[in-house]
Parts: sequence; structure tokens; C-alpha cells
Amino acid sequence: MAGMLNLVDTSLPVAVVIDEQLEEVGLILERQLASDLTAVNALCQHIEQYQGKRLRPTLVLLSGLAASNGPYDASSLTNKHRVVAAVVEMIHMATLVHDDVLDEAKIRRKVVTLNHLRGNETAVMLGDYLISNAFHLCSSIYDPAINIALGEVTNTLCAGELLQLHHRDDYDIDEATYFEIVQRKTASLIGQSCYLGAILSCNDEKIANQMRHFGNLLGIAFQVQDDLLDITGDESVVGKSLGKDLDEGKLTLPLIRCLADADDIKRKEVLSLIANRDAANLRRCLIQCKAVEKSQQHASDLVEEAKTQLECLKPSPARDLLQSLAGAVISREF
Amino acid sequence: MAGMLNLVDTSLPVAVVIDEQLEEVGLILERQLASDLTAVNALCQHIEQYQGKRLRPTLVLLSGLAASNGPYDASSLTNKHRVVAAVVEMIHMATLVHDDVLDEAKIRRKVVTLNHLRGNETAVMLGDYLISNAFHLCSSIYDPAINIALGEVTNTLCAGELLQLHHRDDYDIDEATYFEIVQRKTASLIGQSCYLGAILSCNDEKIANQMRHFGNLLGIAFQVQDDLLDITGDESVVGKSLGKDLDEGKLTLPLIRCLADADDIKRKEVLSLIANRDAANLRRCLIQCKAVEKSQQHASDLVEEAKTQLECLKPSPARDLLQSLAGAVISREF
Repeated sequence: MAGMLNLVDTSLPVAVVIDEQLEEVGLILERQLASDLTAVNALCQHIEQYQGKRLRPTLVLLSGLAASNGPYDASSLTNKHRVVAAVVEMIHMATLVHDDVLDEAKIRRKVVTLNHLRGNETAVMLGDYLISNAFHLCSSIYDPAINIALGEVTNTLCAGELLQLHHRDDYDIDEATYFEIVQRKTASLIGQSCYLGAILSCNDEKIANQMRHFGNLLGIAFQVQDDLLDITGDESVVGKSLGKDLDEGKLTLPLIRCLADADDIKRKEVLSLIANRDAANLRRCLIQCKAVEKSQQHASDLVEEAKTQLECLKPSPARDLLQSLAGAVISREF
Repeated sequence: MAGMLNLVDTSLPVAVVIDEQLEEVGLILERQLASDLTAVNALCQHIEQYQGKRLRPTLVLLSGLAASNGPYDASSLTNKHRVVAAVVEMIHMATLVHDDVLDEAKIRRKVVTLNHLRGNETAVMLGDYLISNAFHLCSSIYDPAINIALGEVTNTLCAGELLQLHHRDDYDIDEATYFEIVQRKTASLIGQSCYLGAILSCNDEKIANQMRHFGNLLGIAFQVQDDLLDITGDESVVGKSLGKDLDEGKLTLPLIRCLADADDIKRKEVLSLIANRDAANLRRCLIQCKAVEKSQQHASDLVEEAKTQLECLKPSPARDLLQSLAGAVISREF
């Protein structure tokens, strides 16, 4: 059963199609990562457990289905769709592995992180192995335009991560910069997943670009929800260490909102809670000043705006599922 | 003046051609890495200083020139040659940046390493930015076969690094495993540089494969020379911290030879020098048991074998320069 689809009505025939296709995507990914070296295979088996929500491959397949002329079953999806779905998931897995190095996160999807298990060195190299294999797999479909589109998005993603590091512990960061970072490091790959799925099906730049916009909006909402879960989530449900953002000097949307609205006294109080890593009182404070509520509203508005982008598509069960998925991005508790 | 060419007769007209072409390669690289984010540009400017010997781009260009039908000037090289030369250098730079994370090296090419300056997180992400840009640039020449060839070699390279980490502190490592690691992590990219330069010029798989073999042999010799410099080099000339291999539990060829030849008493003595990080006495020991001399001989034999591969090419000034360059790989002191 596929992660994100778990959150919606999976008895729908179209959800069953996507679920089956995701199984095939998983096999492509596994075959690609297989090495003649047993030491490498052992590591790959470990990180294959990282596959969680599979949001990005789901969006490639579902966008592909929804942008096709039907029928809305597996026959409308090509091997290129499945390969691209595997590639975006591998890129995402690489960012998780490298983020674990950065973050010194000890728990990721309830699995002990690789860096904690084998040291940062192995995690860095395994992330590189994933990136390299993603590009190698992508090249195997002999479509340079797809390669360029993926290269562009990984450039953007890395630049976003660098921008975020540049603003580490920057308590004066404004919302515009926050959204700039989020657009690059999170939304760009989600947007490109939708674009690529669609362009492979309909070859219509206008529709594909609108699907990218759908994905971008969804991606930003996804990140805001992640920010919120880091503050208000239940660690046993979320499946990773909470309060990490605080520990790493990453300012989240609720915190930025709270600091922007605060007077001098309040600001001092909040900064002192941050300095003392007092997550419990900070949480209370962010709820009290309505920064949490306002961020939830922002995410909800983004999802509504995203849904309207889907009007470029003909009505279909695949389009309906994209709508449901959009809602699930912010109703999720993990 | 280009690094590796410094070591040979650079007054030759063909060396001047390559030197000029390398300048253009440097501009391609710089343009590719340019970002709209000033924070990213500042980091890129820092690592552009890492460009040292430029062995790999030099080999792409020189193999391209030598495998062409002449004339042996810039007119025989295409934009594809220059782009591939920039791509292999970017891949190499990414491995240096990520190796610095792994190695906690404090000095690289006499420049303070990025991880020391900005933290491991930034170094990891900047390495990713380099890898991503390498593939994006490579895709821009719209030649999927080149993309696949580069994807294959980066897969191999990363697997080699992982294999090396798997054998960290393994004092029973045999020579076969050592050479397997070196072939993957060092020689493969050097071999592929020669292959790609040649195939772009002559489109003859047989010649290009022989050039890859030339590069592979040269690459192994290059690594053995690196091992030797880590033991016998002069830090002010080598331009990076010495004794690093020892600190990181990486067994070098002289050490493997010494341990393989040692009786039980000698073995205990050597292992104790390693445990105590007694670089000075270990050096003395490796010289005394002739492990250094034998490794030098091995590197020299590899270079001779490499040179015979060049017989697949027509005699030319470019071929002569490849010969000289092969010799310089082991006569270098940095």
C-alpha cells in the first residue's frame, strides 16, 4: 500500500492502478541500485526502507494519467513515466540521506538513520551513489529534455539548501526569503514531478506548466505542514525526531510569523525560548499568538489555489484523486 | 598555466593549444555554476580555487586531439569536448569537496577547506550542487550516450568510495581489493575522460576503449603516487595535510605490501606504529622494508604499460604530449 494514497480513498479503481504502478516503480529503483558489491547492496537495502509517502512518484504517475486522453488505467502510462517516477524518488531519497548528515537526525521514519549507524562518511557517499544512479537511470530513456528538466530541478534544490544554510540562525529572516527557500528546496521537485508526468502524456507545455504550478503550490503547503508537525506533531506518529528545526537553527513559518508580529518584549521572550531550546513553552507561545493557526490557514489557502490549477485537465477519476491528494497533504499527521 | 602541463614541456605548440582550451573549459564551468543567489556564488568562487592539476579535462582535450585526424590544433576540438572536459572536472571537484567532509582534511591545495570554514553541512550541499550542475551541463549537449557514460562512471566512483569505507581500518585488506577500490574511485573517471575525448573525435569504439585502458592504468599509477606522497611527500609542496590516509584508516599500497611481507613480530610492530599514529617511524619502516621502493616500481610499470596503449593512435604532437603527461603522473611531487 502506497504512502500518500493511504490517506485517501484507496478503494477507487484509479488508486489501485497507481498502487500497482508504484510497485513497478519500486522494482525499477531496486534494479537500478543493485551493485556487484555486497557492501553497497547492504546499504541500499537499508535506505530502501526510507521510501515513505512516495508523494513524488505518485504525482508523476497520477499527473501522467490525468493529463492523458484516457483510458484511466495502466495502459495510459509508459515506461518513461515509471522511470521518471523512480528517478524523482531516488533524488528525494538522496536528499533525505544527506539531510540526515546535516541534521544529525537520529530517527528517520522510525528507522535508525544511516549516519548514526555507519558514520557521516558513508551517508555522504551513499547519497552521492543515489544521485548518480538517478541521473544514470534518467539517461537510460534517451530523452535529453527530461534529463535537462531534472538537472535544472536538482540545481534549484541544492541552491535552496545552500540558501537555507546561509540563513541558519538568522532570526530576522522574512517570509519572502522563507518562501524562496521552500520553493527551491521542497516545492521545485514536487512541481517538476507533476510537470514531467503530464508532459510525457500530453506533450502540451501549457497543461504541463499548469501542473507544475499545481505541484509547486502543493509543495509549499507540504513544507508548511512539515513545519507545523515539527512543532505540534506526535513523535510516535510523525516517525522522526521533533523539534529538529529549532535545534538546527532553521526558522519555520510559525516562528517567523510570531517574531514578525511580536513587540520588543515578546521578541526577547521568544528568542530566549529558542536559545534555551525550550520546545514546550515555545510551542505554547506559537499557539497563543495564533502563528500556528495562521500558518495552518496559509497552507490550506495554498491547497485551495493548487486545486484550481487542476481545471486545466479534463474531469477524470485521476483528476479527482489529485484533488483528494492535495487535501491529504495538509490533513496528514506524519 | 594549466596544472599537469606545468610538469612537461609547455613551450610545445600543442601544449599551448591545450592550455588555451583549458581556459575556455574554465569559463564554461564558471558560467554553469553561476547562480542568481549571491550566497551560492560566494561558495562557488571559493571552490573554484580547488582546480589544481586539471588532469581530467586535460586528458579529455588531449585524447580528443590525439584521436582526431588532425590538424593538431584547436580546430579539431568541438564544443562537446570542452563541455565534457568541464563536466569531468566538476565531478572531480565534487569528490574533493565531499572527501573533505569525509576526511576532515584541514588543508586542500593550500586553501582552507570549505567544511572547516563553513561546516560539513555546506560542504555536503555544495558537493551536491556541483554533481547536479555537472549532469545538467552534460545534458545540455543533447547526447544521451555521453550522459550514460558519465552516469556509469559516477556510479562506479561512488561504489568505490563505499567499498573503501567498508574496508576502513581493515589491516587484512589484500592487494586485489586495494586495486579494486582504486580502479573504481580514482581510475574510472580518468579512464572515462580519455574514452570520451577520443570517441568524440574518432567515433571508433576500439580506439576509444584502448584510450580508456590508457587512462585506467594512468589513474591507478596516479593513486599509488598519491599514496607515496602521503608517506614521503613534503607538505609545503603537496599542498594538503599529509599522514591523512593513516588517520582515516585507509591502507595505502606501501602499507599493504609491508604487512603482507611481514612476519608476526614485524606485523605487530607495524600495527603498533599505526595505532600510535607514529607517522615518522612508520615512514622509516616502509622505506626500510622496501615497500616504498616496490610501490614506486609498480607505479612506474603501470605508466610504461599505459604508454604502450597509445600505439593505437597515429604519431602526433598530441600523442607525444600524452606520453610525457603519463611520465609526469609519477614524477610529480604534488
